Amino acid sequence: MKQILTTLFLITCLTGFSQKSIIGFSPENTEKQLQLEKSFEEKLNATNLDQWMQKMAAEPHWVGTEFGEKNAKWIKSQFESWGYDTKIETYQILFPYPTERVLELTGPTKYTAKLTAVPVEGDPFTAQGDALLPSYNAFSTDGDVEAELVFVNYGIPKDYEELEKLGISVKGKIVIAKYQGSWRGIKPKLAAEKGAIGCIIYSDPEDDGYGQGDVYPKGAYKNKTGVQRGSVMDMPTYPGDVLTPGYAATKDAKRLDRKDAPTITKIPVLPISYEDALPLLSALDGTVAPESWRGGLPITYHIGPGPAKVHLKLAFDWKLVPAHNVIATLKGSEFPDQWVMRGNHHDAWVHGANDPISGMVALMEEARAIGELAKKGQKPKRTLVFCAWDAEEPGLIGSTEWVEDHKKELQEKVVAYINTDGNGRGFLGAGGSHSLQAMVSEVAGSVIDPQTKVSVKERKIASNMVNGGADSFELYALGSGSDYTPFIQHAGIAALNLGFGGENGGGEYHTIYDTYPHYKRFKDPEFAYGVALANTAGLITLRLANADVLPLNFTQWHSTVSNYLTEIINETDNMRKDVLKHNTMVEKNTYQLAADPTKQINSPTKKDRIPYIDFSPLQNELVLLNESITEFEKTNTTSLSSKMRNELNKKLMKAEHMLTSEKGLPRRPWFKHQIYAPGFYTGYGVKTLPGVREAIEQKDWKEAQEQIELLTSTFKSFNTFIKEMNESIK
Amino acid sequence: MKQILTTLFLITCLTGFSQKSIIGFSPENTEKQLQLEKSFEEKLNATNLDQWMQKMAAEPHWVGTEFGEKNAKWIKSQFESWGYDTKIETYQILFPYPTERVLELTGPTKYTAKLTAVPVEGDPFTAQGDALLPSYNAFSTDGDVEAELVFVNYGIPKDYEELEKLGISVKGKIVIAKYQGSWRGIKPKLAAEKGAIGCIIYSDPEDDGYGQGDVYPKGAYKNKTGVQRGSVMDMPTYPGDVLTPGYAATKDAKRLDRKDAPTITKIPVLPISYEDALPLLSALDGTVAPESWRGGLPITYHIGPGPAKVHLKLAFDWKLVPAHNVIATLKGSEFPDQWVMRGNHHDAWVHGANDPISGMVALMEEARAIGELAKKGQKPKRTLVFCAWDAEEPGLIGSTEWVEDHKKELQEKVVAYINTDGNGRGFLGAGGSHSLQAMVSEVAGSVIDPQTKVSVKERKIASNMVNGGADSFELYALGSGSDYTPFIQHAGIAALNLGFGGENGGGEYHTIYDTYPHYKRFKDPEFAYGVALANTAGLITLRLANADVLPLNFTQWHSTVSNYLTEIINETDNMRKDVLKHNTMVEKNTYQLAADPTKQINSPTKKDRIPYIDFSPLQNELVLLNESITEFEKTNTTSLSSKMRNELNKKLMKAEHMLTSEKGLPRRPWFKHQIYAPGFYTGYGVKTLPGVREAIEQKDWKEAQEQIELLTSTFKSFNTFIKEMNESIK
Repeated sequence: MKQILTTLFLITCLTGFSQKSIIGFSPENTEKQLQLEKSFEEKLNATNLDQWMQKMAAEPHWVGTEFGEKNAKWIKSQFESWGYDTKIETYQILFPYPTERVLELTGPTKYTAKLTAVPVEGDPFTAQGDALLPSYNAFSTDGDVEAELVFVNYGIPKDYEELEKLGISVKGKIVIAKYQGSWRGIKPKLAAEKGAIGCIIYSDPEDDGYGQGDVYPKGAYKNKTGVQRGSVMDMPTYPGDVLTPGYAATKDAKRLDRKDAPTITKIPVLPISYEDALPLLSALDGTVAPESWRGGLPITYHIGPGPAKVHLKLAFDWKLVPAHNVIATLKGSEFPDQWVMRGNHHDAWVHGANDPISGMVALMEEARAIGELAKKGQKPKRTLVFCAWDAEEPGLIGSTEWVEDHKKELQEKVVAYINTDGNGRGFLGAGGSHSLQAMVSEVAGSVIDPQTKVSVKERKIASNMVNGGADSFELYALGSGSDYTPFIQHAGIAALNLGFGGENGGGEYHTIYDTYPHYKRFKDPEFAYGVALANTAGLITLRLANADVLPLNFTQWHSTVSNYLTEIINETDNMRKDVLKHNTMVEKNTYQLAADPTKQINSPTKKDRIPYIDFSPLQNELVLLNESITEFEKTNTTSLSSKMRNELNKKLMKAEHMLTSEKGLPRRPWFKHQIYAPGFYTGYGVKTLPGVREAIEQKDWKEAQEQIELLTSTFKSFNTFIKEMNESIK
Repeated sequence: MKQILTTLFLITCLTGFSQKSIIGFSPENTEKQLQLEKSFEEKLNATNLDQWMQKMAAEPHWVGTEFGEKNAKWIKSQFESWGYDTKIETYQILFPYPTERVLELTGPTKYTAKLTAVPVEGDPFTAQGDALLPSYNAFSTDGDVEAELVFVNYGIPKDYEELEKLGISVKGKIVIAKYQGSWRGIKPKLAAEKGAIGCIIYSDPEDDGYGQGDVYPKGAYKNKTGVQRGSVMDMPTYPGDVLTPGYAATKDAKRLDRKDAPTITKIPVLPISYEDALPLLSALDGTVAPESWRGGLPITYHIGPGPAKVHLKLAFDWKLVPAHNVIATLKGSEFPDQWVMRGNHHDAWVHGANDPISGMVALMEEARAIGELAKKGQKPKRTLVFCAWDAEEPGLIGSTEWVEDHKKELQEKVVAYINTDGNGRGFLGAGGSHSLQAMVSEVAGSVIDPQTKVSVKERKIASNMVNGGADSFELYALGSGSDYTPFIQHAGIAALNLGFGGENGGGEYHTIYDTYPHYKRFKDPEFAYGVALANTAGLITLRLANADVLPLNFTQWHSTVSNYLTEIINETDNMRKDVLKHNTMVEKNTYQLAADPTKQINSPTKKDRIPYIDFSPLQNELVLLNESITEFEKTNTTSLSSKMRNELNKKLMKAEHMLTSEKGLPRRPWFKHQIYAPGFYTGYGVKTLPGVREAIEQKDWKEAQEQIELLTSTFKSFNTFIKEMNESIK
């Protein structure tokens, strides 16, 4: 039987009928699914996205606002009208609103920061005055500090290494860092670790202003008054409500004292515009900043410390506010206890036309189209759960609390979670669990790009190649930064994150300029990519919902994970070579001889040797895993009996969870996944095989060996799991 | 005998007495030479350099000025007082002084460029008003043009490739280009080739202003009013007087009509400050410049064309002026017809404290010390000729006319020419004929760095290593940019160029700010590196003057030249791969799919295949050369009879000339050297094995094969020459 099917499959491929096969579908169900998908696509209507955005982005709607609640209720009513069983699940979360914001240059010259972006012509939304959320960083601690200023570039670890070389300390100082280079929350975290007492973050015009393009309203980019808001909660430790780590922030939940909440910053932090940064940076003197640190302001960038002295005073109201998640369910016709989940947040920092409404309206249009099909009898086999999350912006709070609340049920029932957030014109970016890569790639090959009329996959590959990348479509690995985090990182549920972009540059992110007029002019004027996103995410949802066998591919997973290990091994070897070279140069006094004696620098000292590390347990286990996976992928599982398929699907649903460890990662047990995690010192940026990789990067050799053992045992369990599946389909 | 000497040499090395041997000196003469060098070093006095700089940089002294003539006469009197037979050799050269300079933005807004740098506090030299040379580019043609403006980045070939992709033509437009990225003369040359009718060059503050450091007078860098003067004569075609190509500009020489002079620009060119550039660039619109094009002004850089429209009007007086070269000779005690030459120019654009006086005073101090030694009976064995060139700035004119005038005699008598120009604090940079590398390296190993007290060689290697370079001391290859050019490139005389730098950054180059106060504050405050330069160049001069056997090493030369060939072969292979990849991407429509359809771009078309080229004649000849050279280097030549040594030295003097071809390079027969030349489209930047390399870069495969043949025959003659030497020392 197998033999014949393989031959048939080959013939199908060779004769060009391959477009008629879909991963996970039996030949008899393929045609039916393709018809369904065609009907789905035909129902998608850009006008809906446009109108819904105008409605939901009409006023500011951060968590706790009336307009936010109004949006949640309206979303609920929409889902209900489309036939979904919909509820709002509300959590009481800590959310700080700023009651005082003062930033002054007190010496040697005086300047009081304006801290306010200006309204612009042609965009009435920017003129809503007091209704706009003041610019600040959520989960900055209160503070009132005055000290000399130090410019720290992006304020990331390698910048502090450079400062150390230059003999400059930030102890007792206030640092000013550029946005970018890492997730923003890393900047105050590191600054505090280094002894700073305050932190200012600004958008440098080279990275995010006139250096990128014409500024708003002439162009899309950040004008001199724009300020990026954003959370500085220590999300790499745990996201979600700061007072209820690991459990839901229900009304009566036991809460930490605020002073004990580990994810609130240790020092006050404030984001400012480049107009406000200019007088501060101009007042610095001392060492000229290294060439790569200098930005786009028309000054010579100095590091300080001082003579610039600044006063920073911040206070917040620290209230509990309600976060309203909208949860809409369409019960599956055959497998009601197998859920395919789809989510996007609905809260914004201000109007949030792009972030998050452009993704939200795509999700809603998918739900509407699927709802209509269901009404006509074409119900998905598995249950669909659409979610509109609240309080994503301050720290993925709505989704995290919900996942923590329902963790056990979700781990039992969820097949996969598909996330979107902002969206724009350009190329498909898709990240997530690599067992899903083959399926996503197949879908991307069948969705048509609205501008070029080739598939979005082909267009994405063209972009890769022109930028020197590979001739293939790949998922990126997920770190953090949106609502997939609690699903994949904490609950161990397969997840995807989807969005189009690359031709929609701008500086509106988290500012008062992220409005409907800005979106219409610079992002996706016809909502064509909104429809393309609805189409892509919708097809993925429908395939996961109706597949005869869940479309997971482990060959792909294995090669990706093996590459991660190879990367780590090579990086360790390179560290070793670099340290050897460095130590030789220290011995020979090379650094001092090459340095300018008139400039004070700290001479580098010898570094500890990088030991050889025993990676063989991981390597051996990956070889064994490869054998089991090869065995598994040999079987044409869609041709199994329906009983066997159903049993197999129940197992496949658990595959991602096999890659977690209940112990979690060192120093942050909330993060359970052993393959992907946000970096402890990079924030959103992913670290793959994070336990091993970060131990090596931090040169903790004991921990590295422990993490190798832990990861090996994870691989072992995963192998056992695959072998059991192999037994079950024999 | 040979056997014993080799053994002795080995023992010497192994027992640590190696510092007592010098390349080219017999054991019996080594001690004497080292004593002489010690006496020489002890005579060097920083105070002289300081005082002489104050004297010579007191007023502006470009060619043709009274102060320039006064300097020449004073230099002559100094040399005479030190015992040199000194004369001034004067040529009548064409030198344009600006009579009219107008640059206006005529639309859509109005602005008239100031074209004048401001005097600064603490530097009275900058307040000399009309005595300062107006800022302009010498050998710009006259012109009166008005047209739309186009920003062309650095205005080099790859920038025009980018413009072509973007579908932007400069035909009939005026271009504005940043300084840097190439020698300035390339910018108007290329712009004219592309159809532009005018060219503006400005110093962008990112490259040359506040982006580099604090500006004058707070710091050393270019303030907003500073303008770099400089020649735009087409020197890669031929340097020197534009009206007398290849022969001396004597009073009665036959001169070209100015309209026929090929090295005057085809379109008017004017350099401006970044203060004057800002209104022009701000008035541009259209395509936003690619990221790498954007500079340090606080604007979004647009390419245009227009709507900015500019009017550029330039006129010059086009007079013949006298260029006074000072030639000072100290007759050799044993070999009067073997000349070791040493030169630096004395003319400046304005005061020229750094360029050229800092090098000139080092040369004079060497001459003074050597003169004193000679007076005490320690005369060099070979003749020394010290030269102070005039009219270097407008196009290496003084030295070129002199070399053209005396070419035959020089080719017979000159052992080597050692050039210096500006000098500063930091690391030894040494370029030149690679047969001299071993000797220069040896000298660098014995000159002490004034700041770190290790040898300048050790310090230079430390700098290499910290910047990722090799653990070795190497000569760079000479392109053009100073007075070594006529010697090595035209006459085929071995040459060196020496200078310290790297810790003396600034923006004074060719501006009114290159003054004594600027030099004292930012360049070499104690003239310690001036003395180090005098020491280095002096030892090289004295070793060449007194060596028993001229210190040329061909093993080093061979390995360097072999590397150049390998580079060209690899680059050709890479071009081939790139074209193949490019053509595949064109076929698959990849570029168009990756492009933003809302932006106009010209789709790339397929490129011609890069053929495989037969490099084997060169490779085979290099193998044969290696055999001859190995044979030559086996001999301990210093132990030969004096008759044999004298015969050998007469041959060695001709070695560099064997690397030239009387035919010269394609399209520029003035350039005779087959190993080194300035690039036809890079200006000062060197192209090694230029005939072959540039033919390949220009994809002229027929010419590439011809040049391979020509270079092969040059190698063959060189091999015959080495073999003859081998015969003569048997």
